[in-house]
Amino acid sequence: MKSSGVITLLSDFGLADGYVAAMKGVLLRQAPTATQVDISHLVARHDIVGGAFVLATAAPYFPTGTVHLAVVDPGVGTSRAAVAVRTASAWFVGPDNGLLYRAVGGRARETVKIESVPGFDEPRSATFHGRDLFAPTAAYLARGGEMKALGEPSDGLSPLVLALAEEREAEVVGQVVHIDHFGNVITNIDATQLPGPPERLLIEVAGQRIDGMVACYGDVSAGTLCALVGSDGLLEIAVSEGSAQALLEISRFDEVVCKVCS
Amino acid sequence: MKSSGVITLLSDFGLADGYVAAMKGVLLRQAPTATQVDISHLVARHDIVGGAFVLATAAPYFPTGTVHLAVVDPGVGTSRAAVAVRTASAWFVGPDNGLLYRAVGGRARETVKIESVPGFDEPRSATFHGRDLFAPTAAYLARGGEMKALGEPSDGLSPLVLALAEEREAEVVGQVVHIDHFGNVITNIDATQLPGPPERLLIEVAGQRIDGMVACYGDVSAGTLCALVGSDGLLEIAVSEGSAQALLEISRFDEVVCKVCS
Amino acid sequence: MKSSGVITLLSDFGLADGYVAAMKGVLLRQAPTATQVDISHLVARHDIVGGAFVLATAAPYFPTGTVHLAVVDPGVGTSRAAVAVRTASAWFVGPDNGLLYRAVGGRARETVKIESVPGFDEPRSATFHGRDLFAPTAAYLARGGEMKALGEPSDGLSPLVLALAEEREAEVVGQVVHIDHFGNVITNIDATQLPGPPERLLIEVAGQRIDGMVACYGDVSAGTLCALVGSDGLLEIAVSEGSAQALLEISRFDEVVCKVCS
Repeated sequence: MKSSGVITLLSDFGLADGYVAAMKGVLLRQAPTATQVDISHLVARHDIVGGAFVLATAAPYFPTGTVHLAVVDPGVGTSRAAVAVRTASAWFVGPDNGLLYRAVGGRARETVKIESVPGFDEPRSATFHGRDLFAPTAAYLARGGEMKALGEPSDGLSPLVLALAEEREAEVVGQVVHIDHFGNVITNIDATQLPGPPERLLIEVAGQRIDGMVACYGDVSAGTLCALVGSDGLLEIAVSEGSAQALLEISRFDEVVCKVCS
Repeated sequence: MKSSGVITLLSDFGLADGYVAAMKGVLLRQAPTATQVDISHLVARHDIVGGAFVLATAAPYFPTGTVHLAVVDPGVGTSRAAVAVRTASAWFVGPDNGLLYRAVGGRARETVKIESVPGFDEPRSATFHGRDLFAPTAAYLARGGEMKALGEPSDGLSPLVLALAEEREAEVVGQVVHIDHFGNVITNIDATQLPGPPERLLIEVAGQRIDGMVACYGDVSAGTLCALVGSDGLLEIAVSEGSAQALLEISRFDEVVCKVCS
Repeated sequence: MKSSGVITLLSDFGLADGYVAAMKGVLLRQAPTATQVDISHLVARHDIVGGAFVLATAAPYFPTGTVHLAVVDPGVGTSRAAVAVRTASAWFVGPDNGLLYRAVGGRARETVKIESVPGFDEPRSATFHGRDLFAPTAAYLARGGEMKALGEPSDGLSPLVLALAEEREAEVVGQVVHIDHFGNVITNIDATQLPGPPERLLIEVAGQRIDGMVACYGDVSAGTLCALVGSDGLLEIAVSEGSAQALLEISRFDEVVCKVCS
């Protein structure tokens, strides 16, 4: 795989401080011709699960050979490993704490523990590996550097422990995995797991029942609760021109049941 | 008009999810050498009027031949049309729901309903046309693609229904059209509509009277309410080093009257 | 010094309006091949001290020859000067109100008051010099323009009046200078000013005492208050996987004392 020259950035650094820009400055010095694209820096603080979801949502749309730099790293400076992973279509660089797990998704072809970055010998702080280790690594890979020069091979990534939707007879029991900016409630129930045809399904969530599924938000009148397959292929609960989160007072990890109407 | 190779993005997607990045990934794959610039992704959810204002504020400053991709689209997946518009200086791509109307401003030279994008045949979700239809279209135009290959010509854009400031004898009656990050209150009264010389004007807003206009915020002491012509050429109510919105407790569409002192 | 072709942007404009994009459009027209990178646009409104800190945190990581465009400018349109500064490694462009002072840090080699920008003759509003004066200046310098063509030389920058940490016998008395997105409390006490070895230090802040310093956040258990040298080389108070600001109810300019345990 050849580098696309694209580096994406994801973090929980927020946009008010100079931290994201410090990483970008390092990337510019180490890979001046690379194109930098933000995925998000508004992952909730230390929210590895949330960061893993957002990374997995966006990464597949980038060109083959993109380097994804992701830093949600409450354990920075401790013994948690720093890793680089190569799949058939991308590289991923970040802490080995589950953050990369969902985006890599079992497709790792090569994983290394990052020890040092060839050609980069600036001091490494104990609190900002995004700037001092991960950005130099991402730049090195975007320039065409070899994974094996970064450190020893690793057996694989530490897993992100998340419940999978459970398929029972004529029903699927899942969980809320993400609530987006619109208040849309996204579940871990994949479209391929739905237990029957969309119009015959009954969804139970937060004490409410939704009869049948629609194709898009505008298929119901404004303010109406509905269920649909969202743009990532997952069962999603929404309110047309409104917020399902506000209506349902729901949180991540709450249960969602999808069954066939009897 | 030749493409400038610049694509701007505006949406109500927020910055916490992976949605904006998914659009950018598609743009990078379809137009790898284009320069992408965000206008804003913090348009309030489903706020077509607000998005239209922000787009119209920023678009004129971009190079001739820029493609503006704008997505505030509560009707995604319904029968609302997807359109591309060419003016003498730019292309605009988005839903035909009024969002593009203010920026295009009667200068459309060619409008088409987007049916499909030549060379792009990935599946189209019912809920995310920003990623699956508008981004491919914007990339296609930035690469130099022909409008007419996108779909049938359209008579024109659906209008954005907004009141215009009303010019009466010796006074102009307008409305608040936007409140910015600083709490500056921007009206639909154009500098060319002012009924007299700035120092002789009286502005009535939210039960307050402002005598005369100033040139800049710093012309009055900190905390003082003032009126001036803002950077877009519109009558604006501000508080020096403070927020006029907070002081006046004012909302979009509230009335503003500007008259000549008697 | 040769231009790196990189322009950074910092402001208090927020991300919801079209103001940042209007500046970027001007930069694209005046310096089409420059790479634009945001430092932050979420500096608190009119917060010159906060903007100066963020700019100084990020600027050193950019390539030599970068142009830093910074606009936190409550006095726009008044007699405050507009300046451009050249150091050995970068240019800085913005209002002369203290905003650039910390990043320049006594390293100015040439300072000019910007009167006009060669080759740019668009009208200048009284309220948006970021778009009408500073962006054209930054683009001109990024293209390789001469400082002296912008205006008359200036003796130097107006200072940003900030207390320095005071070194007394066996203790240092400093202040909180920044509170970041994580709630980490950053002081003006430099690592080089610490009055003894890290393990023998006692830090007093907001009525709490912290015994000794750690290397990184993860060295203490989640929720525990700790002190460390942060990624900018300054004494920092933090809570592992939490917010020191929330725990201590502390504000910028509050006192922090660091002494040797007796």
